Amino acid sequence: MFGQLLENVRRQTPLVHHITNYVTVNDCANITLACGGSPIMADDVLEAEEITAVCQSLVINIGTLNERTISSMLKAGKKANELGRPVIFDPVGAGASKLRTETAFRLIQEVHFSVIRANGSEIKTILQGCGSTKGVDADAKDAVSEINIRSAAASAQKLAKKLDCVVAMTGAIDVVANADTTFLIRNGHPFMSKITGTGCMLSSVTGAFCGANPDQVLDAAAAAVCAMGLCGQLARREGIGTASYRTGILDQMSLLTPHKLEGGMLLERIGK
Amino acid sequence: MFGQLLENVRRQTPLVHHITNYVTVNDCANITLACGGSPIMADDVLEAEEITAVCQSLVINIGTLNERTISSMLKAGKKANELGRPVIFDPVGAGASKLRTETAFRLIQEVHFSVIRANGSEIKTILQGCGSTKGVDADAKDAVSEINIRSAAASAQKLAKKLDCVVAMTGAIDVVANADTTFLIRNGHPFMSKITGTGCMLSSVTGAFCGANPDQVLDAAAAAVCAMGLCGQLARREGIGTASYRTGILDQMSLLTPHKLEGGMLLERIGK
Amino acid sequence: MFGQLLENVRRQTPLVHHITNYVTVNDCANITLACGGSPIMADDVLEAEEITAVCQSLVINIGTLNERTISSMLKAGKKANELGRPVIFDPVGAGASKLRTETAFRLIQEVHFSVIRANGSEIKTILQGCGSTKGVDADAKDAVSEINIRSAAASAQKLAKKLDCVVAMTGAIDVVANADTTFLIRNGHPFMSKITGTGCMLSSVTGAFCGANPDQVLDAAAAAVCAMGLCGQLARREGIGTASYRTGILDQMSLLTPHKLEGGMLLERIGK
Repeated sequence: MFGQLLENVRRQTPLVHHITNYVTVNDCANITLACGGSPIMADDVLEAEEITAVCQSLVINIGTLNERTISSMLKAGKKANELGRPVIFDPVGAGASKLRTETAFRLIQEVHFSVIRANGSEIKTILQGCGSTKGVDADAKDAVSEINIRSAAASAQKLAKKLDCVVAMTGAIDVVANADTTFLIRNGHPFMSKITGTGCMLSSVTGAFCGANPDQVLDAAAAAVCAMGLCGQLARREGIGTASYRTGILDQMSLLTPHKLEGGMLLERIGK
Repeated sequence: MFGQLLENVRRQTPLVHHITNYVTVNDCANITLACGGSPIMADDVLEAEEITAVCQSLVINIGTLNERTISSMLKAGKKANELGRPVIFDPVGAGASKLRTETAFRLIQEVHFSVIRANGSEIKTILQGCGSTKGVDADAKDAVSEINIRSAAASAQKLAKKLDCVVAMTGAIDVVANADTTFLIRNGHPFMSKITGTGCMLSSVTGAFCGANPDQVLDAAAAAVCAMGLCGQLARREGIGTASYRTGILDQMSLLTPHKLEGGMLLERIGK
Repeated sequence: MFGQLLENVRRQTPLVHHITNYVTVNDCANITLACGGSPIMADDVLEAEEITAVCQSLVINIGTLNERTISSMLKAGKKANELGRPVIFDPVGAGASKLRTETAFRLIQEVHFSVIRANGSEIKTILQGCGSTKGVDADAKDAVSEINIRSAAASAQKLAKKLDCVVAMTGAIDVVANADTTFLIRNGHPFMSKITGTGCMLSSVTGAFCGANPDQVLDAAAAAVCAMGLCGQLARREGIGTASYRTGILDQMSLLTPHKLEGGMLLERIGK
């Protein structure tokens, strides 16, 4: 069934509007294309709503936020809500500065997100109104692993209920949850943390999957997480350097088939 | 003769001032170097004119335009005109939002462009004062192909006459035209649309070719289009992933020789 | 001993705050990770100081400066000074425009830099209050080579004394100097100039090395210069294209070991 969700992305080529950071934006554009979507990056307040209106989904990523782009995020987000289009939120570094934390809170108050894709520290910050994010990576104690997976899953589900959305909390294990159902996903490879942008890229892929499958955002988000993690596994070769690995992840996404995705995904379903 | 134009780029290392988008800017810088030029990106209004003044050409690309950079584009463009340096315009997404369309019109009114490099929808928007651009890609009905090549060539030539410039309209077939002469170019590969930035990169290469050959902008633009398309062909291998393909295109540009270019270009000349 | 400095980066994973240009920012982030650090890019004035405060070092690069980010550079630089954290300055294009030259001067007046990493023209501009920078590359007459190495080293040392800092002046030969000691480094490969960002990347690596070795900034800067140059040598293969070469440099940095660094570095020490 997840294969079908990928198939839908490839067939529909959803336009994914990104308001995102300038560090990983090129990788985000290329992975959107690689999974079958079509990216458009437009962050000026004078066109944010209009561009959102022609797109099938919107990705908001606060990786290099500034006052100019925050206004655009708010406008674009509200427009997407009005039109019923999925909005994905990547609260990069929430907890690392007052600006990031407050912006994350403001966005959550004014925009309804379909999916929040974040690491353990960022989710904790959003959930608790406080948190400790070590830069843009999760604090060791917040990172999701086999040891804390139950409490991590509980946090993801709590936030999902609170905000009526899907929470995709990524780490050594990934948790994708809405109010009723939780997926634990064991795809991925530790080497993914050796390059910048795997989180941002996953948010873009989630945008493409949700854009093509707007009525199944839980499954779409879970499929995106499996797909990204699987590409991270397939690209890994002994002794590979990090830049070749990054090329490999993007290559694998462009070569991914529904069959490969279904054969490779490591998914555990909890609840309904 | 096109080989000589490439040779001139390699020998003169023209400085190419870019005011461009943050999505593909790194690829633009690297392909400028790969073809033999030297890129400089500077978008602040306080230095735009001064940087243009030390460069051999200017590339204006509205891919992620905003109010701050639009002012810089206008100032830099006028300065380049004053100094008689070629200016290349890449109206990314003209037709997709009012901001893009109006900015494209304003730039065309206030700056004389040597070359406009765009897809079919963007050219149509500029020509007709309206158009339908699907995000940053051409609408299916506007995409240049064997079926509509005659009318596409007529549109390109019409715009070239109207604005006294060279129009490079790219698609499955590329049209490069001025008022008197039209080139149809059949280099390139469909896989080029699977990565972001091939259009932007072509505009940068055009900037380098025109910077080194300012008295032959029609031929320089056509040579750039052939060179880029040929690299797209040479980089293509069965089963290649999209990120490796992108690396391959840049590699091929850096390894391109005048001899390879002349042997590989697929050019049909119509008119004088 | 330089091997130990690399080991310290790998063990401590220093957070490196970057306020840098949007052209090479992704390469800067990836090379920071490749050498063992962790990058964070944050340029809004509302969070610049706060982000600097959680980081082990700060890199200021004026490659695509604008009024908004200049304020952030000043604030972040002062905060790093207050906390005693190393600050690395990359005055990209100082001498090429009044804005760049004046901003470089202002930063030097208001912020104490641990290391200034620049090419010959940029160093000359900062030293003399004037200079001729050809775009973002050094003027041929200012480029450091075997011919002018003595006067280049003298310039570097003069600036180091004047600003009480380490000067890393890079070219065909690299000079790393403080008031007492000068290192001449003969690692590197001419092909490094065929891709954008090797200078910026070196500044990032210097940030990581200084962040992990704050009490040995001279040696840390020299080790970073050796490491970057060695990766440039190791990545070079006959007939390689420029994009593959860029991937290779990043790969080599991620695969560099203390042993390889000590075995490959080409260092001559002058003075104490």
